[in-house]
Amino acid sequence: MKTLPRHSGVFRAFALGALLALATHALAQTDPLPSWNDGAAKKAIVEFVQTTTTQGSPQFVPPAERIATFDQDGTLWVEHPMYSQVMYILESVPALVKAKPELAKVAPFSTVLEVLKGDRAAISKLTMPDLEKLAAATLTGMPVATFQAEAKKWLAEAKDPRWKKPYTELTYLPMQEVLKYLRANGYKTYIVTGGGQDFVRQYSEAVYGIPPEQVIGTAGGTKYGYAKDGKPFLTKEPKLLLNDNNAGKPEGIHLMIGRRPYMAVGNSTGDQQMLEYTKAGDGARLSMLVLHDDAKREYAYGPAQGLPATKVGAFTQALYDQAKKRGWIVVSMKDDWKRIFAFE
Amino acid sequence: MKTLPRHSGVFRAFALGALLALATHALAQTDPLPSWNDGAAKKAIVEFVQTTTTQGSPQFVPPAERIATFDQDGTLWVEHPMYSQVMYILESVPALVKAKPELAKVAPFSTVLEVLKGDRAAISKLTMPDLEKLAAATLTGMPVATFQAEAKKWLAEAKDPRWKKPYTELTYLPMQEVLKYLRANGYKTYIVTGGGQDFVRQYSEAVYGIPPEQVIGTAGGTKYGYAKDGKPFLTKEPKLLLNDNNAGKPEGIHLMIGRRPYMAVGNSTGDQQMLEYTKAGDGARLSMLVLHDDAKREYAYGPAQGLPATKVGAFTQALYDQAKKRGWIVVSMKDDWKRIFAFE
Repeated sequence: MKTLPRHSGVFRAFALGALLALATHALAQTDPLPSWNDGAAKKAIVEFVQTTTTQGSPQFVPPAERIATFDQDGTLWVEHPMYSQVMYILESVPALVKAKPELAKVAPFSTVLEVLKGDRAAISKLTMPDLEKLAAATLTGMPVATFQAEAKKWLAEAKDPRWKKPYTELTYLPMQEVLKYLRANGYKTYIVTGGGQDFVRQYSEAVYGIPPEQVIGTAGGTKYGYAKDGKPFLTKEPKLLLNDNNAGKPEGIHLMIGRRPYMAVGNSTGDQQMLEYTKAGDGARLSMLVLHDDAKREYAYGPAQGLPATKVGAFTQALYDQAKKRGWIVVSMKDDWKRIFAFE
Repeated sequence: MKTLPRHSGVFRAFALGALLALATHALAQTDPLPSWNDGAAKKAIVEFVQTTTTQGSPQFVPPAERIATFDQDGTLWVEHPMYSQVMYILESVPALVKAKPELAKVAPFSTVLEVLKGDRAAISKLTMPDLEKLAAATLTGMPVATFQAEAKKWLAEAKDPRWKKPYTELTYLPMQEVLKYLRANGYKTYIVTGGGQDFVRQYSEAVYGIPPEQVIGTAGGTKYGYAKDGKPFLTKEPKLLLNDNNAGKPEGIHLMIGRRPYMAVGNSTGDQQMLEYTKAGDGARLSMLVLHDDAKREYAYGPAQGLPATKVGAFTQALYDQAKKRGWIVVSMKDDWKRIFAFE
């Protein structure tokens, strides 16, 4: 290596430049959550990460135990006016009817065709058992690889009606920052969703940087078998193994991870038990709920705090009161988030 | 820093010493599998790792997709004369009978008490339904935390009858080397065991460096509930979610990982489907079976290749023939392993 003359002007100028560059870099690094406004929520996240990852902290968590779990719909991305996977199920019906024309006149398939033709009122005719029937027909009974290809195709083409963008772009930038911040500090980030595990796994890595094995969702069984050429394959079965909602969330976490998260984030009553379970652990634990109170930039629904009621991702007043009582953080989209989407 | 006079004898001597140290270190590093004898099995493992992890190789696998799955009993540790978890179940019966004295005279609990008192012949009376009954009674119906504490206590105290060592020390050194070699090359290593998922997760991290979330095993449901003080907890339920044997292994891999492994290792007919499923993927895939043909240093059982038949971890001739036909590697414990245990 060619050495610079020590203590010369050139050397000092170089050293000063390097120091300045380092300082600028350090300043740019000081805010890991630039899309968050300063406030209790942002402060709680930063304090939680510092407390649990600083060597010598009384609440230090060894890297192997750093687990954080996130609900998806309404927590990491938009869930209104309807969960994207429900849109997938509905929009898969025409192809299903094409393959089995006898279904065209049979409810609930006929009802879905009316909805897709523009009869929005028809959607209210669909009951929960209808939706289960539709889910079984569109999500099961085919090889895993066929489902994966169909889901990927839909995800590439389908668009949200309001923003006219692929659903996969409607993720919340502030939450993407939280995921990255946690990972940069040694946390393993998991999705724990009521949505279909196989569905969410098709895009979790590209959209959130979360690999399929860190997606826990509502899961059905598969059946191992052989094709005519002897090649083995798995078929998706209409057999529910895990309903990953409500109590199913901590149960699913135990099944798939086997230890309690240190941080959990949700946005609806379906996340209550996951947040309780997380917060009940020893040491520093962070439970957090996203409140959709921003009708202008996204949507406003509760019914907590007098917000409009909804059937999609309800955040009840009881859940709000529980959060306040137990020290869970409630994030106001309106007040806590400087930006909502990366494309804004 | 005090600088050494450049090009002086001292400097040159220092540089030479450093180079020698580096070279020695490099030589020591050239064999990642020192407990393996040179042969087809060792060669196949090293070639597989090099082929799939060398940038520019036509069969390069991106780090995120590097998944390797290992059966446990008979593949990573000793399974004879009996699976360690079955020993746990049997040895948990006295405490169970103490808590519920009415069971003392009821089969299969009474039969187990006879076995434990030394009547080895009584063990043959135990049928599969008996074992299921015993498993339900000793592995379920209690809080997850209670089970974890009991399993950990047993693991710390129980000893294998032949080596008089804790079961957790009876792991195969050559396989430990394979696990480490794979991880050093970016592979995520998983256990995929017919044993109980909750049981194996109690020691997998300490024994194999495999965290609980990378243990897939036979799994039962849990039920979320609240203690009197309002604290939530999970109870182990006698409800089977996944029988992680035979076809259940690829099904379990899909459920818990969501993608196909590049390498899979087993030792018995219960691993056949996992090995088929792995080998059926694109690119370089390695399927491997451990053959217990070393009666002196461990055990000899098949019935493949004329080895004695067994009910515990049978390796049939049909499986052996399938392995040879499909290019799976069969590891001979006798010929391929220089050492078997770390304590030897």
